[in-house]
Amino acid sequence: MQKIPVAILGATGAVGQRLVSILFDHPWFEPVALCASERSMGKPYGTCTRWILQDPMPVLASLLTVQGCKPFDGPAVVFSALDADVAYTIEEDWAKAGVLVVSNARSHRMRDDVPLVVPELNADHLRLVERQPYPEGGAIVTNPNCSTIGLVLALKALDDAFGLKAVNVVTLQAASGAGYPGVPFMDLIDNAVPFIPGEEEKLETEPLKILGHLPPDGAREGAPSGGAVEYAGFGISAACHRVAVSDGHLEAVSVAFERPADHEAILRAWLESPTDTDGLNLPSAPERPVIYADAQDRPQPRFDRFAGSGMSATIGRLRPCPILGWKFELLSHNTVRGAAGGTVLLAELCVAKGLVRGYTASMMTEAEPELALA
Amino acid sequence: MQKIPVAILGATGAVGQRLVSILFDHPWFEPVALCASERSMGKPYGTCTRWILQDPMPVLASLLTVQGCKPFDGPAVVFSALDADVAYTIEEDWAKAGVLVVSNARSHRMRDDVPLVVPELNADHLRLVERQPYPEGGAIVTNPNCSTIGLVLALKALDDAFGLKAVNVVTLQAASGAGYPGVPFMDLIDNAVPFIPGEEEKLETEPLKILGHLPPDGAREGAPSGGAVEYAGFGISAACHRVAVSDGHLEAVSVAFERPADHEAILRAWLESPTDTDGLNLPSAPERPVIYADAQDRPQPRFDRFAGSGMSATIGRLRPCPILGWKFELLSHNTVRGAAGGTVLLAELCVAKGLVRGYTASMMTEAEPELALA
Amino acid sequence: MQKIPVAILGATGAVGQRLVSILFDHPWFEPVALCASERSMGKPYGTCTRWILQDPMPVLASLLTVQGCKPFDGPAVVFSALDADVAYTIEEDWAKAGVLVVSNARSHRMRDDVPLVVPELNADHLRLVERQPYPEGGAIVTNPNCSTIGLVLALKALDDAFGLKAVNVVTLQAASGAGYPGVPFMDLIDNAVPFIPGEEEKLETEPLKILGHLPPDGAREGAPSGGAVEYAGFGISAACHRVAVSDGHLEAVSVAFERPADHEAILRAWLESPTDTDGLNLPSAPERPVIYADAQDRPQPRFDRFAGSGMSATIGRLRPCPILGWKFELLSHNTVRGAAGGTVLLAELCVAKGLVRGYTASMMTEAEPELALA
Amino acid sequence: MQKIPVAILGATGAVGQRLVSILFDHPWFEPVALCASERSMGKPYGTCTRWILQDPMPVLASLLTVQGCKPFDGPAVVFSALDADVAYTIEEDWAKAGVLVVSNARSHRMRDDVPLVVPELNADHLRLVERQPYPEGGAIVTNPNCSTIGLVLALKALDDAFGLKAVNVVTLQAASGAGYPGVPFMDLIDNAVPFIPGEEEKLETEPLKILGHLPPDGAREGAPSGGAVEYAGFGISAACHRVAVSDGHLEAVSVAFERPADHEAILRAWLESPTDTDGLNLPSAPERPVIYADAQDRPQPRFDRFAGSGMSATIGRLRPCPILGWKFELLSHNTVRGAAGGTVLLAELCVAKGLVRGYTASMMTEAEPELALA
Repeated sequence: MQKIPVAILGATGAVGQRLVSILFDHPWFEPVALCASERSMGKPYGTCTRWILQDPMPVLASLLTVQGCKPFDGPAVVFSALDADVAYTIEEDWAKAGVLVVSNARSHRMRDDVPLVVPELNADHLRLVERQPYPEGGAIVTNPNCSTIGLVLALKALDDAFGLKAVNVVTLQAASGAGYPGVPFMDLIDNAVPFIPGEEEKLETEPLKILGHLPPDGAREGAPSGGAVEYAGFGISAACHRVAVSDGHLEAVSVAFERPADHEAILRAWLESPTDTDGLNLPSAPERPVIYADAQDRPQPRFDRFAGSGMSATIGRLRPCPILGWKFELLSHNTVRGAAGGTVLLAELCVAKGLVRGYTASMMTEAEPELALA
Repeated sequence: MQKIPVAILGATGAVGQRLVSILFDHPWFEPVALCASERSMGKPYGTCTRWILQDPMPVLASLLTVQGCKPFDGPAVVFSALDADVAYTIEEDWAKAGVLVVSNARSHRMRDDVPLVVPELNADHLRLVERQPYPEGGAIVTNPNCSTIGLVLALKALDDAFGLKAVNVVTLQAASGAGYPGVPFMDLIDNAVPFIPGEEEKLETEPLKILGHLPPDGAREGAPSGGAVEYAGFGISAACHRVAVSDGHLEAVSVAFERPADHEAILRAWLESPTDTDGLNLPSAPERPVIYADAQDRPQPRFDRFAGSGMSATIGRLRPCPILGWKFELLSHNTVRGAAGGTVLLAELCVAKGLVRGYTASMMTEAEPELALA
Repeated sequence: MQKIPVAILGATGAVGQRLVSILFDHPWFEPVALCASERSMGKPYGTCTRWILQDPMPVLASLLTVQGCKPFDGPAVVFSALDADVAYTIEEDWAKAGVLVVSNARSHRMRDDVPLVVPELNADHLRLVERQPYPEGGAIVTNPNCSTIGLVLALKALDDAFGLKAVNVVTLQAASGAGYPGVPFMDLIDNAVPFIPGEEEKLETEPLKILGHLPPDGAREGAPSGGAVEYAGFGISAACHRVAVSDGHLEAVSVAFERPADHEAILRAWLESPTDTDGLNLPSAPERPVIYADAQDRPQPRFDRFAGSGMSATIGRLRPCPILGWKFELLSHNTVRGAAGGTVLLAELCVAKGLVRGYTASMMTEAEPELALA
Repeated sequence: MQKIPVAILGATGAVGQRLVSILFDHPWFEPVALCASERSMGKPYGTCTRWILQDPMPVLASLLTVQGCKPFDGPAVVFSALDADVAYTIEEDWAKAGVLVVSNARSHRMRDDVPLVVPELNADHLRLVERQPYPEGGAIVTNPNCSTIGLVLALKALDDAFGLKAVNVVTLQAASGAGYPGVPFMDLIDNAVPFIPGEEEKLETEPLKILGHLPPDGAREGAPSGGAVEYAGFGISAACHRVAVSDGHLEAVSVAFERPADHEAILRAWLESPTDTDGLNLPSAPERPVIYADAQDRPQPRFDRFAGSGMSATIGRLRPCPILGWKFELLSHNTVRGAAGGTVLLAELCVAKGLVRGYTASMMTEAEPELALA
């Protein structure tokens, strides 16, 4: 089997490092280029990167010479961990060059012709790429914000089963979500901060696109191929907090349903609903995207963030809400599922869906799913 | 001026220590007895207490010999910082002995004939003591749970102005709320815990009593003197979390109103509403029970908990809520306003209302309000 | 291959839990009994244990019914994670019953006839058990204090190569060293504590026994078989601190040598000295007991504690000391190498040395060393 | 009384903010200018400063327009909290302009003609300014590094009483010592870092200058007025660590003496030695520069950093050291005594010594020492 050559944009940053950590040990992808800003160009990755992960830097990565972020020949997929302020143009340049861009940046997320995808939930939205104005093989697909992913993993099955009317979510988010150096120690020691710039806006809109409906081609007479996503109609209210935690976003969620629900039916929706990745054997897909913790004081970041190798959200404390109907607690790993791991899983889905020019899922037969993130 | 002799029950615990710290420097009260469990009885307070406050232990306190908690002669008021499991009987014994008990324990809070009072908000509820079956001078008055106090300080003015229909509150509570030793370090380092035993129940019920209506005596034909409180009718949903903070409970609150409100009117309600302590010159009363912080990332525990010497709640980030109408962030000091300081302020109110046998507010003329908690 | 049946004493505590976590996945040992105090007896381990590890509780363990700590038939080895106040008698009772006790408690450590062993350093001290007054198969062997182990791993090679004259060590110790619940959160938030009861005494004496000399049998005319250890002669000064870290003891060490040393020779001593476990293929033995970190700001608890699956000490910042000659920084995992993992490695050594009645190392051929602690 | 007009250089940084906080409430000094880099120039201090202190920003300060750092007319004293990379030239420019510069930067500290002063210990070193090549009134005096100040407060009395031969110091330093934003949260959560750039070098040399001897003028035949300081002759070894603490440097110190000492004599040296500020009535001078804490687990940052309003060092755990003779633990507030407060005290000393042109100590009669830092 020949692995798929990939590049990582923004490889020296916090999310970029986790991409490096995952991709240098991935059964399908092979990093051939680590790209960063001018400051690092031309230097070995090992010397220009302040490595912040607990796992050691892959030796092969440390030896690679960092390149710039402009398109060059070689990669069939680029993973983008770029800052939003530079991502828009660079990502578009790669797409124009006929390369699939799988992006963790927010720049293109809300474009009508760009899919915003959580693989288990709305794989069909990938059809949107047909509307993109790029040459063959070129496309941009995007991964949601870190606090959005955990939330929609919990909401999708509920929406399908009971019809969501309203969602209230209050987050306790980890410091790693702000990148590195990110939050100063003096801002979070013995403290919590009830504000994260732009976060509530993302959390109040991205889920509506992800849980929205993409009509089949030609469903409406005269509709252009690949119509836009019809956003979900329920309301979301978000209040976001930064807390003294390294990794793992905790969210207190209340939901109102259109149809009656009971405790058992809700649990069944989470634990038994089919997902869009069932049967695809994607290496990074967890056994179940959602796990339910029975203990009365869970989920907790320190103990549950690595559930499903960091790719499963853990839910707990499902109970009636006197205002909206039901409430629960939710945890997901913000830099694994919520960023690098989610991006890699999305790229795997793109391979399975035939979006990577020259490579098909059947070529990836030697994949060993269970080791990908171990 | 002669100060009022007081005893402190549970003086060696976390809340008891803060009572000691406040009362040994109080213009009206003079601690004459520090009481605790058998383990400490007969020992000097300074040697049997593991002092956990940043302010040093008052020298006079350290020299007092700790007594048991059973009633004895001397105190005109006892402050109770007892654990709920022993508070019920001990507090009642003091009341039966003709002493005013001002309690921070939850044991008697929800009794029909016991006032649950935040002095600025529902001072009139003190009338309930007339229904209590104790001899002259004997009574039990109670202070709410630490997370309740901050919340009702924000809700009362809103309820008066706009009529509350529904309240959703998600808390990020400090470790000191669990007492001492309380939460193990290993439970909160790099972590947050989405559960505090009994807390959500208290937060969903106590505010309804505090913001409830106590009809005037004889309002209804043949009604007994001092009828029970009619609980407020709005719903509350609470989700409580423990976070890695020492002091200061942060709460994310959403509210639905019966009548229209706008940003300016809400601010005016908080900042300009009259309070029940206006004009009483109570030493521990802050200038305003509620302060509004303009900065977009406030309130924060580390920076706002000592507002108004720890007796004012700080509100910030008032903004529309897509689900309930309005939302905001709230912070109050859980062991000052939320426990010891609130209890002392309540005792001061009792003096002003004539509930302390042998003492009147006019006898307290030398009081120096601004220094009480400095 | 038949695994060796073992019991774990004190299985519900912090160290006991890590023993459970290691031993239920161990190639040589098979836990047949989990023992604890009366409070837990008769209950399933899964319901009476407040599990505090990040790895989930082994399912098999959760189903076992907890037994008392008195000797019973079945185990060939007992691992003791008992508190020192009860360990002395219970451990002796097991030894009298003909069972090998491998203990993490301090109770018997300094007895003349009890070996205090770090397997790589002083395996020959196991000969001391011949002096013990227990029936065949019965013996007590002990694991040092958590802060001692890291230190002696660094000191042994230096003593052999250059002759130690004096050692000054200042520790920054993790909270888990105090067990669970252990240190209250309120004691360590935004704080460091310059005192750990009994710790400096242990750190100033245990290394002298471990690095001491046990003369060969009959070395001196008429000497009893297995004479006592002659303690090492150098002085140690220790100052111990508790810091806001979960796992991983950091130690700042200065050393004076009898013979000249240089930077390269010291590194070589650490990295190339033979150890007593070379060639024994013990499952828990790390590739090297000591690792040197080149980066100028290492070792750090968060990044280096899991070196060698938590069984290697990491040293860094070797540099001249203007007072004693040389100084360096040292880190080791206090609950893995410093407690449970070290105890398991010691038990493996006992198997290899023939101290477990009915079992020999050659019977353990299927052992898969590299997976034991993965 | 007319206050002394002063400017603050680097007023928007972490130390600058504490200078602002102290000086806007100071009985002798009156800030007339807040100076910072070009980025802030021309803006109101309140809008261009990210205020990080728990005490609120003085209202008057918030309204001042920030100026550049080049010399201008008005200030009689400038306080410098500049970064070392720009401090050298700017401070010298102010001295050349005839203004007294009291600096917290390290740039000029080790110059032969610049006094490095802890007011209680070596006030006589101020004579060095006579050797400086600046016009009348112009001079540079410097405050030591934050970890140095606590150490020398403890060492001076010991050196005087017993003669220091050797000092070993291991520090646990607070994050605020790195300024703001300073240490990223992700670097210190659940961690400790055994390296602070340049810190060990400063701690191994600055004390030798401070505790050095400045011969009286003309002591040696033909010596220039104000000869250089003869450095103290003992050796110092330092190992510096950053720990998860906001404020307060903890230091584990071992000392070897030339002359015999005992426990009581050492305590007496600390608690009873005369200091150079006795009788000067300097507003910021604490009652005693050194306090001894009797409890066996003190000093601790969270509980002792504000001793003497943050200007006293707290010592504890004096005990014999098997290697050097004696050891103890030491704590001092790194941004109060160790930076801003120490700088202000030094400026007060300069006033008392007649170094501020146009102002004398006797003009400052209305000073209220006890309120200066309250």
